[in-house]
Amino acid sequence: MVTVGIIGLGLMGGSLGLALKGKYRVVGYDRNEKHVVEALEIGIVDEVVSFEEVQKVDILFLAIPVEGIISAIESFSNLGKETTIIDLGSTKEKIVEKVPAEIRENFIPAHPMAGTEKSGPTASIKELYRDRVVVLCDLEKSGEKQKKDAFEIFNFLEMRIVEMNSKEHDKHTAWISHLPHLISFSLANSVMAQENRESILNLSAGGFRDMSRLAKSSPNMWRDIFYQNRENLLESVELFQKELNHMKILLQNLEMDRVKERMVSANRLHDIL
Amino acid sequence: MVTVGIIGLGLMGGSLGLALKGKYRVVGYDRNEKHVVEALEIGIVDEVVSFEEVQKVDILFLAIPVEGIISAIESFSNLGKETTIIDLGSTKEKIVEKVPAEIRENFIPAHPMAGTEKSGPTASIKELYRDRVVVLCDLEKSGEKQKKDAFEIFNFLEMRIVEMNSKEHDKHTAWISHLPHLISFSLANSVMAQENRESILNLSAGGFRDMSRLAKSSPNMWRDIFYQNRENLLESVELFQKELNHMKILLQNLEMDRVKERMVSANRLHDIL
Repeated sequence: MVTVGIIGLGLMGGSLGLALKGKYRVVGYDRNEKHVVEALEIGIVDEVVSFEEVQKVDILFLAIPVEGIISAIESFSNLGKETTIIDLGSTKEKIVEKVPAEIRENFIPAHPMAGTEKSGPTASIKELYRDRVVVLCDLEKSGEKQKKDAFEIFNFLEMRIVEMNSKEHDKHTAWISHLPHLISFSLANSVMAQENRESILNLSAGGFRDMSRLAKSSPNMWRDIFYQNRENLLESVELFQKELNHMKILLQNLEMDRVKERMVSANRLHDIL
Repeated sequence: MVTVGIIGLGLMGGSLGLALKGKYRVVGYDRNEKHVVEALEIGIVDEVVSFEEVQKVDILFLAIPVEGIISAIESFSNLGKETTIIDLGSTKEKIVEKVPAEIRENFIPAHPMAGTEKSGPTASIKELYRDRVVVLCDLEKSGEKQKKDAFEIFNFLEMRIVEMNSKEHDKHTAWISHLPHLISFSLANSVMAQENRESILNLSAGGFRDMSRLAKSSPNMWRDIFYQNRENLLESVELFQKELNHMKILLQNLEMDRVKERMVSANRLHDIL
């Protein structure tokens, strides 16, 4: 049986363990003691092992915050020669830059477009990855055995594989994920800065809940993502700020037909999503 | 059997008809021919009647865009003396101002905090209102019979009644509903302005879908809401812009610990919502 190692047993790693167990032998490592206890209770992994042990597997997943991924790949000392290392980070360019040359062929930069605003092993969902997109980056620099492993395991997870270079990936995810998170955090904070926030939030329905859900996401995880992808994120924030400000000015000038035109334009999302 | 009239047989009026039929006799009016045909096909109302006829009922709902509500209440000529008129508009202050004095006691300003991004009779959902908040405004100016009717019918719909003055209502909904819509429209437009929008949107997962769902809402309906509530909305937009810009500047200055603090602060939503 192929052995899979998972570093990080939170939402992403935990969900992976639940989905792979049975088909693969799954061992896990987490430096957080509480996560270890919960992971064993829930049965996310077959065994919890040390950081040294977890490297000696056929396929090793890195399911930790993106700055932690960089630290981890710089500190491996016990990797198998052929071990396939798959990182699940939400940023790719800075991570790929830091992969030591001697393990570059072992490495598969991956980003599963899946998750929830929750975190920790108890947030794990066996079906989290199913039918979702996984982006694989810069595969021309990965070894044949490693690519084969990656395709097999993501197919087993029933994910839709999209290939893209890491630069492109980071530009895309700034728009599709990182900017929406930044907006949601900001919306939540601006509402909660209101004196009568409790009575405002008492009226919340589906719209506000959807728009503020991401604001419940893990600050540790998102600090790292924002840091690594700050250049693309800042670019997308500025374009968003321009669009919002344009709407504000139209509204100030009572140009309601033009406000309506912008909404008709936004409605085109219907045709795509 | 009590007769309910519904002006406007789209998502809001249609859902109301589906929920009330059986318990009440429901007649409807819509100036849109297509809506009339669809409403009869779906069985939203017992009968479609003229604008004159629909006024001669026990309880009359106005389920049309908020500028249309103002036109309607200024053009009634066939109302019953005791008819309870309940408007379902998303704004309240400007509507209440325009209610003619001679029907002010008949009038119940209401705002059900329910809806979806869809519109038209075919979007109707029988359970749309159940368990949701309905805000009733300025009730001290409504008659006793009319208040009784309103409480009875919203209780029948299993809604949670919250009372508030119309000024307060409009300030609250600017935050909880109107600003989130404006942000969502702007986010959708800024992503769709990207040259590679299709390949960006191909990566969309739950986060982006949630944040952009409201951008699919009806431009006609939202033009009116933004117009009527522009003062409160502009105030909330500016506070949101400040918060977002603050995050941007922290990111530009690489003050990641302070970025994290803002996210920890946003996480407090957990405790309330």
